[in-house]
Amino acid sequence: MTALPAPELAVSRWFNTPEPLTLAGLRGRVVLLHAFQMLCPGCVSHGTPQAQRAHTLFRHTDLAVVGLHTVFEHHAAMTPVSLEAFIHEYRLTFPIGVDAHEGNQPVPVTMGRFKMRGTPTAIVIGRDGTIRHEGFGQEDDLALGAILGSLLTEKP
Amino acid sequence: MTALPAPELAVSRWFNTPEPLTLAGLRGRVVLLHAFQMLCPGCVSHGTPQAQRAHTLFRHTDLAVVGLHTVFEHHAAMTPVSLEAFIHEYRLTFPIGVDAHEGNQPVPVTMGRFKMRGTPTAIVIGRDGTIRHEGFGQEDDLALGAILGSLLTEKP
Amino acid sequence: MTALPAPELAVSRWFNTPEPLTLAGLRGRVVLLHAFQMLCPGCVSHGTPQAQRAHTLFRHTDLAVVGLHTVFEHHAAMTPVSLEAFIHEYRLTFPIGVDAHEGNQPVPVTMGRFKMRGTPTAIVIGRDGTIRHEGFGQEDDLALGAILGSLLTEKP
Amino acid sequence: MTALPAPELAVSRWFNTPEPLTLAGLRGRVVLLHAFQMLCPGCVSHGTPQAQRAHTLFRHTDLAVVGLHTVFEHHAAMTPVSLEAFIHEYRLTFPIGVDAHEGNQPVPVTMGRFKMRGTPTAIVIGRDGTIRHEGFGQEDDLALGAILGSLLTEKP
Repeated sequence: MTALPAPELAVSRWFNTPEPLTLAGLRGRVVLLHAFQMLCPGCVSHGTPQAQRAHTLFRHTDLAVVGLHTVFEHHAAMTPVSLEAFIHEYRLTFPIGVDAHEGNQPVPVTMGRFKMRGTPTAIVIGRDGTIRHEGFGQEDDLALGAILGSLLTEKP
Repeated sequence: MTALPAPELAVSRWFNTPEPLTLAGLRGRVVLLHAFQMLCPGCVSHGTPQAQRAHTLFRHTDLAVVGLHTVFEHHAAMTPVSLEAFIHEYRLTFPIGVDAHEGNQPVPVTMGRFKMRGTPTAIVIGRDGTIRHEGFGQEDDLALGAILGSLLTEKP
Repeated sequence: MTALPAPELAVSRWFNTPEPLTLAGLRGRVVLLHAFQMLCPGCVSHGTPQAQRAHTLFRHTDLAVVGLHTVFEHHAAMTPVSLEAFIHEYRLTFPIGVDAHEGNQPVPVTMGRFKMRGTPTAIVIGRDGTIRHEGFGQEDDLALGAILGSLLTEKP
Repeated sequence: MTALPAPELAVSRWFNTPEPLTLAGLRGRVVLLHAFQMLCPGCVSHGTPQAQRAHTLFRHTDLAVVGLHTVFEHHAAMTPVSLEAFIHEYRLTFPIGVDAHEGNQPVPVTMGRFKMRGTPTAIVIGRDGTIRHEGFGQEDDLALGAILGSLLTEKP
């Protein structure tokens, strides 16, 4: 398998982090990128709690869990103001970026760069910055754990 | 047990109904009033799906399931525009009213009249318009079913 | 709807009750009869816990929850000795009878009398001793609650 | 961390395998050893289905999932005859051994050798035959997946 390098994030606003994050800055660490929308039922019931659990479970490793709010529908309903309340109510503590919009494009920039098909999408990036896994929809805990455990074991 | 009459609803906007609803107009029917907020985790995971299931399960009876969006926090995050997208994404089909606000009061009018303590709150109103059950938090399906089954059996 | 009278139970051994039970002796009460096998996955995960919850929830009413171990397969694997350990480990507290076997018939007597199709089966019997509901497979809590609540409200 | 070598299995009867298994024979592979009792509620609801899912999920890797029926109570209720019906009804397809008993000892031999505290117990053994993880009770999928993924990545 030859893995392609992950494109960079384009984020217009960050929550839960004192500094903006970039994938370039996270090079050398394993990254779990969780793309979601706050009004996507499958995200709220499964993907987002899974990302939160991964953030907690792997806190002593060099895994970085990064959320990305990739709004591609109902834009007026899922503004950063609403997202902030969502993050508060669901007690999310991992860094979450708002995927940037360009012009009138409904699909945000990072979502386009990664060619994501919808939400939730889980993308796992290796220490070398390449995409090692991408999954759209419900991701099995045991399978995701195995991917993360495997990449964390690889020598930097 | 002596039951108090339910106060009337004060709703600023309705979804999923061609006509505004009033409890006076529903007299003679059993009513399950489901008070929720779209960013309340316990509503989204439990209370609101329960109300939707009750709406479907009892569709051939004269039970009326009525949702009430009682926003008492994060007001800017839970506008009717956001609620409309929420209703669409979660495929809710029962009538839902937006609890009206008066002046700068954070607690909406109907929520105040019923003296609700938070969301989700389930209120069951008998055919005679009196409050027969009020529950704050997670409502057990078997217990709620028994209350509804009992009231539906009472002679009008 | 015209309801048929429930046939009598044929039980070879009882657990969780000082005295053998009969449907004749329970006349005047509503009865939830839960037919199960201890090695039936759908019973263990759903039906039996539901019966236990009903037993607890309705303990202040005149509902009688009665379990019936209707072994029709793997007879040597589900003896009363095994059932006793099962009842202990799963902390079941409602009365449970072992459905009697006659000769070499694989299907036990009560199961045959009720013409049950398998396990789990939930049968609800009204105060007048007639069968008001019979369900094979997973029984929805809200729906079962409504049936029980309705029958408990009927005048004796 | 220095890992101790796993003691050998002592099994009186095997299911789901044409040949008896030994840990010595599995040297070079990662092993997930799932110790359970068929009447242990936490095994039936969580541990055993997890082992089955691991068996399916990792079938293309060199993980070996091995079940061990470690009966230390209710011996007459959990005989191999009952276990065989249990395996059939729950559609378990991974190899399962009956932990051997010696004399009148209630605790079976392998359970004693591993000093297990109860059921379910999950033990993960590395390619070198050492115990890398031991967990009593409910094992988180994400955490277990990470352990397995990590060990599978280690060079043989």
